[in-house]
Amino acid sequence: MTQDRILLAHGSGGQLSHELVERLFLKYFDNPILARLDDAAVVRVSSFRFQVPGSSNLKAEAPNPKLAFTTDSYVVNPIFFPGGDIGKLAICGTVNDLAMSGARPLYLSASFIIEEGLSLDDLERIVVSMRQAADEAGVEVIAGDTKVVNRGSADGLFINTTGVGIVPEQIGISGSNARPGDKVIVSGAIGDHGMAIMSQREGLEFSAPLRSDCAPLNKLVAAMLEASREIHCLRDPTRGGLATTLNEFAAQSNVGILIHEGRIPIHDAVRGACEMLGLDPLHVANEGKLVAVVGEADAEKVLVCMKGHPYGAEAAIIGEVRAEHPGRVVMRTLLGTLRLVDMLVGDLLPRIC
Amino acid sequence: MTQDRILLAHGSGGQLSHELVERLFLKYFDNPILARLDDAAVVRVSSFRFQVPGSSNLKAEAPNPKLAFTTDSYVVNPIFFPGGDIGKLAICGTVNDLAMSGARPLYLSASFIIEEGLSLDDLERIVVSMRQAADEAGVEVIAGDTKVVNRGSADGLFINTTGVGIVPEQIGISGSNARPGDKVIVSGAIGDHGMAIMSQREGLEFSAPLRSDCAPLNKLVAAMLEASREIHCLRDPTRGGLATTLNEFAAQSNVGILIHEGRIPIHDAVRGACEMLGLDPLHVANEGKLVAVVGEADAEKVLVCMKGHPYGAEAAIIGEVRAEHPGRVVMRTLLGTLRLVDMLVGDLLPRIC
Repeated sequence: MTQDRILLAHGSGGQLSHELVERLFLKYFDNPILARLDDAAVVRVSSFRFQVPGSSNLKAEAPNPKLAFTTDSYVVNPIFFPGGDIGKLAICGTVNDLAMSGARPLYLSASFIIEEGLSLDDLERIVVSMRQAADEAGVEVIAGDTKVVNRGSADGLFINTTGVGIVPEQIGISGSNARPGDKVIVSGAIGDHGMAIMSQREGLEFSAPLRSDCAPLNKLVAAMLEASREIHCLRDPTRGGLATTLNEFAAQSNVGILIHEGRIPIHDAVRGACEMLGLDPLHVANEGKLVAVVGEADAEKVLVCMKGHPYGAEAAIIGEVRAEHPGRVVMRTLLGTLRLVDMLVGDLLPRIC
Repeated sequence: MTQDRILLAHGSGGQLSHELVERLFLKYFDNPILARLDDAAVVRVSSFRFQVPGSSNLKAEAPNPKLAFTTDSYVVNPIFFPGGDIGKLAICGTVNDLAMSGARPLYLSASFIIEEGLSLDDLERIVVSMRQAADEAGVEVIAGDTKVVNRGSADGLFINTTGVGIVPEQIGISGSNARPGDKVIVSGAIGDHGMAIMSQREGLEFSAPLRSDCAPLNKLVAAMLEASREIHCLRDPTRGGLATTLNEFAAQSNVGILIHEGRIPIHDAVRGACEMLGLDPLHVANEGKLVAVVGEADAEKVLVCMKGHPYGAEAAIIGEVRAEHPGRVVMRTLLGTLRLVDMLVGDLLPRIC
């Protein structure tokens, strides 16, 4: 790596994050499951080889359910924001990562790193909010941990949640499954979460309110998977935004992606705030949206299914997968020109999640 | 709770930690699995009920492997210390929590919260050390996450690891399984980790070196479980030390525990440092020791098995479980008197793990 110290941009979800993962974590934690870089690791329980003392290997007895496993630490600042808080985010984010692998989320762990001096009332509000989000998603928090660090050694509260789920046998979703001809669907308007955090943090006032879209998407995904077996890729465009997710799909699947600017749903308040601040909404984080790459024949059916769900009401087909320019994402702008859509580079907004 | 703000002692593993867990986390994350408060949550895969679209319920097809699930965030300060570093600790600690449920540890997630400015060389050393510990334990890191927070918002590096394992069918270990007559075995000398951290942090020099005992104990546990089916409780006495673990067993099992001061292995350097600093070694953290409660008939056999393992060479039977004084731990001192052994109260040494 060209730097010798960690920069904020190493945590942005963009290019430096990817470099750090590839040159350090993948290098040393070298295994094919991690190397897939999907939102959740999926392992067959048959990989769970072990000898039961005095009996035969359990492997022979068991079928092969596929276990999904994902982790995220949440460091969002501020811990309360319009539309949610760090607790709701910690449940929804991990539930969504499981759902994006096609898994039915089941169990979560929750680990708290608390700065000495945090108000117990605030902590209680956050735990209540976690419970509500867990109830909505239909998951249970079954393991936990609490650490307290001295004042000045953390910033209020960090929460890690790690989740397990099971992937139904016939489902094989991965960022590497996009095929030329597939359609790209986004489940709703982009940029709400990032702009809500930014306005809250910077004390910016806009005419229309900005509100995080933070939501558990597992039930939307379950409905989509019931509607079609041609859902090839699923991912929630969090850090790095829609542009980064599409670039990940293009790279993992070695395909090109063409999107149409005029079809991308964006709320007016977000568009206005982005224009004012000189931000590209394609790079702004979401916490209640997903991007699906769907076989062409099923795309309309999946879209209709999504529109019938509260978290997919504003869904839209925004583009298609191409054989041309593999590894690249290109956007046809409102002016009719083509522009390359890059992965987020540098640091748009740290500590968004 | 009597406080309205989080204190360092809420993270000590002692009485305030227990209050926080019971009055906040157990209250809102209300479920019987979490409520067992064992080192790892154990769930049957049969609890993994879900409908596969267009097929019958998978529940009917699957046997019932028991999944163990545990999480810990590591905030140790300093991140390098004699005998280990935060990375080795993060792998061993979570492997050990799985092993203490009788599980064979299989997969770990690793989530990094990094303070802007951390040296990449230091991060690489830590990741290498994680890989070495994972190899020794025979586990794989298959899911990960990286967050970077601005300078001053964390203290160098925090790592969360969350682990899954499978518990063989005939094994049912829990802190609530201690029965009168059972023997209490500790796998070696206590207090090494806590005193190594303290001496490093405070720059204290003692004549004999203090070195953390940080180690993965899953292979020791596997050997013990092969030697006997009468291992009732297992726990690694980390935060809060041996005294806190024994108090947890006494409370969860509603039994009394009597230990004998003269039988508790303690290295001279640790004893000397504790005396000098006025600390009770029973309250000092360990990261490579376990406490086992074993049926009387098998205790000697288990002890011999442990002594044959590198991480159990100094194992000793230190006491027994009694019907008298349920919920309490009592120690016969070297002077022949009896003294009550309390759970750690307050804050012996923050950020030990």
